[in-house]
Amino acid sequence: MAKDMTLLWGSGSPPCWRVQIMLEEKQLQGYNQKLLSFEKKEHKSQEVLDMNPRGQLPSFKCGKHILNESYAACFFLENQYKSQGNKLIPDSPDAQALMYQRMFEVLTLGQKMLDLVAYKFRVPEEERHDSAIQRNKEALTAELKLWEGYLNKTDSCLAGKEFTLADVVFFPVIAVIFRFGLSSESHPALAKYYNSLKDRASIKATWPPHWQEPPELDVMKTI
Amino acid sequence: MAKDMTLLWGSGSPPCWRVQIMLEEKQLQGYNQKLLSFEKKEHKSQEVLDMNPRGQLPSFKCGKHILNESYAACFFLENQYKSQGNKLIPDSPDAQALMYQRMFEVLTLGQKMLDLVAYKFRVPEEERHDSAIQRNKEALTAELKLWEGYLNKTDSCLAGKEFTLADVVFFPVIAVIFRFGLSSESHPALAKYYNSLKDRASIKATWPPHWQEPPELDVMKTI
Repeated sequence: MAKDMTLLWGSGSPPCWRVQIMLEEKQLQGYNQKLLSFEKKEHKSQEVLDMNPRGQLPSFKCGKHILNESYAACFFLENQYKSQGNKLIPDSPDAQALMYQRMFEVLTLGQKMLDLVAYKFRVPEEERHDSAIQRNKEALTAELKLWEGYLNKTDSCLAGKEFTLADVVFFPVIAVIFRFGLSSESHPALAKYYNSLKDRASIKATWPPHWQEPPELDVMKTI
Repeated sequence: MAKDMTLLWGSGSPPCWRVQIMLEEKQLQGYNQKLLSFEKKEHKSQEVLDMNPRGQLPSFKCGKHILNESYAACFFLENQYKSQGNKLIPDSPDAQALMYQRMFEVLTLGQKMLDLVAYKFRVPEEERHDSAIQRNKEALTAELKLWEGYLNKTDSCLAGKEFTLADVVFFPVIAVIFRFGLSSESHPALAKYYNSLKDRASIKATWPPHWQEPPELDVMKTI
């Protein structure tokens, strides 16, 4: 069945990485894949636009179904392959409620991370303001404090002991934040979480290839 | 069971409205609720902060579970009340894949809508640029063209004939866009969708109360 799937992806993009982790977790290795370069603007190529009219990665096809949104791909794969690989939506209402709540809070964290990391790419030079960068920094600092608190209260994973969809969507974001210099000393619970999961099979197998090189930014050092 | 639920909400906020529609769809009327005023900054009150550390609405408690994120509330309620009220996740893989894909694309539409509608509230005066407003307008115009195309191809609802979670999350956004002046003539498929659903029981029962007054903005007229 994985032969019927095609993933176009970019290295280091949290949404792409989520789909890759998901496919590993559900034992759907062997899918068709193609690594594209954001730098060369390959995400705006006709090949991508044919699958994804916004020209974004991931572009993911599962049989005849288009599931370009990473959360959509996660939910669909979990639902279609319930009994294959790891079960990623817990049955207990307590863990399920916490999983859903954290999963969608991740969107806020991801947005605040991007507002800082991608400021130069998203805002034309003549519209940039130091005051905006400072505000984005403060917003991310406050946001990370919340997550540090959440992780202080859980057992190993975001919604309890088990690895769930919440971790699939959260881990790539927190990994980018650490790559760009977040201090482990001032965020011990986040660092513990990151270190306990970075060698998980699904994550190790899909580690962004260009991360073998040192990062170009250390924008998180001052958080 | 609905007596065990509490919703703090603001009138006209798509995330709040989603939870309200969802509770109607699942026949969970009779929950505790409190309408708060964004204008008076009641979303930053201690009552909200106790449930929602970001000081946002909706703040929603379902028994002991906190589900402040509208998508989290939708998924949890659908899962916990599968056989009560309307079934909102279709069984067929085709409709399910389309539902998930559209549901998460709505986040992009919602963001682009907010970038335009809330520009003044989100960007301090000294950082505002006409070029940014123009860019936001173009981005929303292109985005709405996509949705117009999607709706041209479906039967009545976003993922086919049946009303699903995709409609629960999409309708409030498109309703805001029409309220702020979007032309029905240039968006006939969106207008048809909007008109076919605005009298649905769950939507009518939860129509934003302050929308009895005329809107303060007509920012969508030029889209």
